[in-house]
Amino acid sequence: MKSFASDNYAGVLPEVMQALQTANNGHARSYGADEITERVTAQLRELLGTDVEVLFVFNGTGANVLSLSAATQSFNAVLCGDISHIYNDESSAPETFTGCRFFALPTNKEGKLEPQTVANKVQRKGDVHYAQIKMLSVTQSTEYGTVYSIDELKALSAVCKEKDLYFHIDGSRFFNAAASLNCSLKELTTDVGVDILSLGGTKLGMMFGEAVIVFNKKLAENIRFQQKQVMQLASKTRFIAAQFEALLHNELWRKTATHANEMAQLLYRSLQEIPDVKVTMPVHANVVFAELPISWNEPLQERFPFYIWLEATNEARLMCAWDTTKEDIEEFVEAMQEMGREF
Amino acid sequence: MKSFASDNYAGVLPEVMQALQTANNGHARSYGADEITERVTAQLRELLGTDVEVLFVFNGTGANVLSLSAATQSFNAVLCGDISHIYNDESSAPETFTGCRFFALPTNKEGKLEPQTVANKVQRKGDVHYAQIKMLSVTQSTEYGTVYSIDELKALSAVCKEKDLYFHIDGSRFFNAAASLNCSLKELTTDVGVDILSLGGTKLGMMFGEAVIVFNKKLAENIRFQQKQVMQLASKTRFIAAQFEALLHNELWRKTATHANEMAQLLYRSLQEIPDVKVTMPVHANVVFAELPISWNEPLQERFPFYIWLEATNEARLMCAWDTTKEDIEEFVEAMQEMGREF
Amino acid sequence: MKSFASDNYAGVLPEVMQALQTANNGHARSYGADEITERVTAQLRELLGTDVEVLFVFNGTGANVLSLSAATQSFNAVLCGDISHIYNDESSAPETFTGCRFFALPTNKEGKLEPQTVANKVQRKGDVHYAQIKMLSVTQSTEYGTVYSIDELKALSAVCKEKDLYFHIDGSRFFNAAASLNCSLKELTTDVGVDILSLGGTKLGMMFGEAVIVFNKKLAENIRFQQKQVMQLASKTRFIAAQFEALLHNELWRKTATHANEMAQLLYRSLQEIPDVKVTMPVHANVVFAELPISWNEPLQERFPFYIWLEATNEARLMCAWDTTKEDIEEFVEAMQEMGREF
Amino acid sequence: MKSFASDNYAGVLPEVMQALQTANNGHARSYGADEITERVTAQLRELLGTDVEVLFVFNGTGANVLSLSAATQSFNAVLCGDISHIYNDESSAPETFTGCRFFALPTNKEGKLEPQTVANKVQRKGDVHYAQIKMLSVTQSTEYGTVYSIDELKALSAVCKEKDLYFHIDGSRFFNAAASLNCSLKELTTDVGVDILSLGGTKLGMMFGEAVIVFNKKLAENIRFQQKQVMQLASKTRFIAAQFEALLHNELWRKTATHANEMAQLLYRSLQEIPDVKVTMPVHANVVFAELPISWNEPLQERFPFYIWLEATNEARLMCAWDTTKEDIEEFVEAMQEMGREF
Repeated sequence: MKSFASDNYAGVLPEVMQALQTANNGHARSYGADEITERVTAQLRELLGTDVEVLFVFNGTGANVLSLSAATQSFNAVLCGDISHIYNDESSAPETFTGCRFFALPTNKEGKLEPQTVANKVQRKGDVHYAQIKMLSVTQSTEYGTVYSIDELKALSAVCKEKDLYFHIDGSRFFNAAASLNCSLKELTTDVGVDILSLGGTKLGMMFGEAVIVFNKKLAENIRFQQKQVMQLASKTRFIAAQFEALLHNELWRKTATHANEMAQLLYRSLQEIPDVKVTMPVHANVVFAELPISWNEPLQERFPFYIWLEATNEARLMCAWDTTKEDIEEFVEAMQEMGREF
Repeated sequence: MKSFASDNYAGVLPEVMQALQTANNGHARSYGADEITERVTAQLRELLGTDVEVLFVFNGTGANVLSLSAATQSFNAVLCGDISHIYNDESSAPETFTGCRFFALPTNKEGKLEPQTVANKVQRKGDVHYAQIKMLSVTQSTEYGTVYSIDELKALSAVCKEKDLYFHIDGSRFFNAAASLNCSLKELTTDVGVDILSLGGTKLGMMFGEAVIVFNKKLAENIRFQQKQVMQLASKTRFIAAQFEALLHNELWRKTATHANEMAQLLYRSLQEIPDVKVTMPVHANVVFAELPISWNEPLQERFPFYIWLEATNEARLMCAWDTTKEDIEEFVEAMQEMGREF
Repeated sequence: MKSFASDNYAGVLPEVMQALQTANNGHARSYGADEITERVTAQLRELLGTDVEVLFVFNGTGANVLSLSAATQSFNAVLCGDISHIYNDESSAPETFTGCRFFALPTNKEGKLEPQTVANKVQRKGDVHYAQIKMLSVTQSTEYGTVYSIDELKALSAVCKEKDLYFHIDGSRFFNAAASLNCSLKELTTDVGVDILSLGGTKLGMMFGEAVIVFNKKLAENIRFQQKQVMQLASKTRFIAAQFEALLHNELWRKTATHANEMAQLLYRSLQEIPDVKVTMPVHANVVFAELPISWNEPLQERFPFYIWLEATNEARLMCAWDTTKEDIEEFVEAMQEMGREF
Repeated sequence: MKSFASDNYAGVLPEVMQALQTANNGHARSYGADEITERVTAQLRELLGTDVEVLFVFNGTGANVLSLSAATQSFNAVLCGDISHIYNDESSAPETFTGCRFFALPTNKEGKLEPQTVANKVQRKGDVHYAQIKMLSVTQSTEYGTVYSIDELKALSAVCKEKDLYFHIDGSRFFNAAASLNCSLKELTTDVGVDILSLGGTKLGMMFGEAVIVFNKKLAENIRFQQKQVMQLASKTRFIAAQFEALLHNELWRKTATHANEMAQLLYRSLQEIPDVKVTMPVHANVVFAELPISWNEPLQERFPFYIWLEATNEARLMCAWDTTKEDIEEFVEAMQEMGREF
């Protein structure tokens, strides 16, 4: 099976698998007190140019819920995009654990939140009847595969500072965004003024594991207690740290993410040649959104699984992974071309 | 370092590591819709002789909280032992997520709950002022490394049925218990009348991952929703399933757990020879509890990390893992003998 | 002070005060086991033509949170209007206590939810990643003082049945709605197919107290436990029941609500005569929404407190209470006329 | 009916009823912004000799949960007595709302917590696996009707300071304790070093209403938001404040509580004369605990309702209220004497 359903259908990068084997070297202290965790934390601090707190966790929902918990009290509210993962794809885990209200804001046609939209929603400060808005969460790259520019993030960060909000990035595909912008991780976080980041690994070829990176010291105060409490403290943490180490080594993450992004570009260009297909979104990262004839769904999905994002227009989400090949794209496109002729 | 601190200091069994590599074979459906998950689920159903629901999760606290959530509403209370992991070592995750009250019951001198203790606590049914007791959670093997006999479990199960409680087993070292009793998994669960089981893998040589096994259909009704909600649904679930498959293959779990248990027996016998050391608990599984001279702690822990369980009597918990060797035990014992001479 | 800020600025109806004194007659069983509670419950069952469960609670947020709790599990979502009280004026109490997600739906220009809007939002049933929509909550009369017709409610109820949602009415001003429609309580609840109702008393001249009325037996199963748990079980419940008894006696509620509604009509008609004032909403119940010149706010609010609902257009909410008099309206209107001349 | 079941079976003090009528005087700002609330708050500040924050709430469970919420984060634990109301009679509301763990400590034979018991339990600070103990809650007067002396409270307060715990008093019968000790409210709170107090009113002849009094400024920071969130913000707050004003006026509380306490003393002395009755607790406040012949329960409870506190020994809780009369006691005792002769 070669799937365009999700980058989490893909397996594990060879370099990551190798790192897991290397890390499997006798006894190590558990719960993050091991040497690899220490080493990778130091490396991230250097890369990011600031004394971040790093917490290795199991999955993306866990990373987000931990980030949200660190920054809120239960009478708070959080702003997020109406298409955001935390609003649409994490069950009610954010509410159940934080107790907060989540206000979904309209995103623009690229699936991005605009500063003015955020600023306008911040209201009724001090009014006990209203859940007090305390945080903004944006997704980078977005659920539509678009990427906020550094300036766009800085503008959002400025609104957060002005309105006294914490600024969270859900970065389950953060590496793809950095690769797309061809910038450093530091430029996209520390320099922007991010308070806390969910940094994804699983979708970029890790077996499991994400990181929560805390830039704002205030949010780090109790986060170790909260990590345990949200069931995101791995006993054998070294095996998450080791995978991140592999991704960071020689910027493997950039090479890998760039490849996935390029496959999406290739798919994007190819689809533009097919008359019955209408690409609906700019392609910045590793996904293409396109409207297809509904009759294609079944025969196409049989060979190349993918998700229909919007049933109304039969808009498909076509995700490229670290292991998507040029040949995969060509076969997929060919299959569509054939359908264009048949149906 | 060779540690007696915890079996989670150990790495990954070679067979498990091999299984991870084998599972890393191209694309697979995510979130548990993959073939390995299906295969292992079928295997567990056959082994357990009943149509269990199987949920692969990340860690032990996650497994327990999911089990508790499946069986309770927030106005319920749960009974557990005063030394239990859910009461002492999982932060307030059980309360935070379930909303329930946890009543800790005294355990007997082997660290086990007795049926009469449980029965006596079940009171005030229907009284809205009192958190309604709805579940019993016991640990097998116990936190003291003792193992409930099948008859002891059946007696507890009978109390649960009589008092309308769900019966949960926290089995983070369940394989060690089954190896100790030399019985099948079915005899220790289905035949006992367990409603839901947290089945541990990490402490027996897995990299990460546990399973929640639901015997009582009523508890399975919403558990898939709850698994996602408690942040315990892995996108690449195949890599947890594959590890369990390795453990189940040719009963690798029994071989491995028996080895760890035997190392504890060896340690137990050896410690009885040392005049300054007093073993405090019967040794059924893979851990020895013993009181040591307090002056030994520092020099001994430097070479062989372990935990002091009870400071008052300097009672040490000495845990054997799947990779503890006869030589490890001998060196450890030797070091103690030497201290006996020195101090 | 004569206020148009809220009907909860008003005091207690003389008949209600009398009922409190009458109820203060020696000892009575606590926590709802008293005779008055029994009597009023029986009366409500007869009035509503069905065997409802009745729970007397302290306040409106308590009534709503209890209703929501009775119908949901924490992985559920609730649909409500974007202007609804539970979404805008109860802090994050609904999320904190139920754990659910709340999806705010756009209301029409009368502040009402339309059946199609509700139906369209119900999606992704069975998808564990999505909070499972299980309930619809509408406000009657609405936050804009409009009233759903019986047919409009039936249409919403039909959508609920079709989509397997529980149907909740937040009726903090339910009596005003029934008075406006000149219908019985039964026609507006039992006959409509409401599952659970928050029935307000405080805003209609009670000192404190609301009722949760459960029409759907499934929701009644655990609600007594939940009432205690959400801190809404009064020890001296007789004093809430007695107030409701006074309201029900000879339909005092209808007389009282009709008066408040008529005062709103009088205000409505009077405001239409003032050139600088623009009434923005149809007036069905006891409130008028109107845009005023912003320069009027301060001098006017000094004598007649009211809230600005929408700052952008300086839209005022002008609420009439059970004790608003014709003279109050005349003085208020006169003051505005004077301002129209001055400013 | 004359009941010894609970002081909440009694009605409302005439002076309180009068205060409610007086407060029912036209419009007043809602949600605590009224003049009576302001006045009573000022009075309490003067009485207590410090700038306390005062929050009027609906009931005792609400007061306690609000107090607990103000002082904890969800990864915290709270220490309380094993007989405490928050542990036995408030459902799981404390856990559900705060998310915390509650550790029940053994009380001494007077039902009091001893400082050493508290000190010994505070452990594992900084250990993320252990719910972090942050608060002590004691009940004054205790559930057994005994009263902590000022020195006993100071000793507990000292332990709290030493161990970095917040010190909460559940004072649902706090006035009875102050009357028993014949001391001022200030001596029993401010001078002791209490951080936060649940001050009961309902059991001393109010219709409804309690107060949360915050001595420690740190706990006041967000408590207004939390009050709304825990559904304990009354719209017509003036009617709670007015009742407290009546209790405070000329120390009506002391007169009333002293009377109830004296009735308990009278009952205590009378019961000592009855051979089949064994008083089990010292009587400091308004309740007597006594073991009765089990055969008396039914006939006695028919005329004089009371609760059996401990079924094992048929220990009855016999509560005196503000309106218990000498004649009530005499009739009750006579009935017992008669039974002593009959059975």
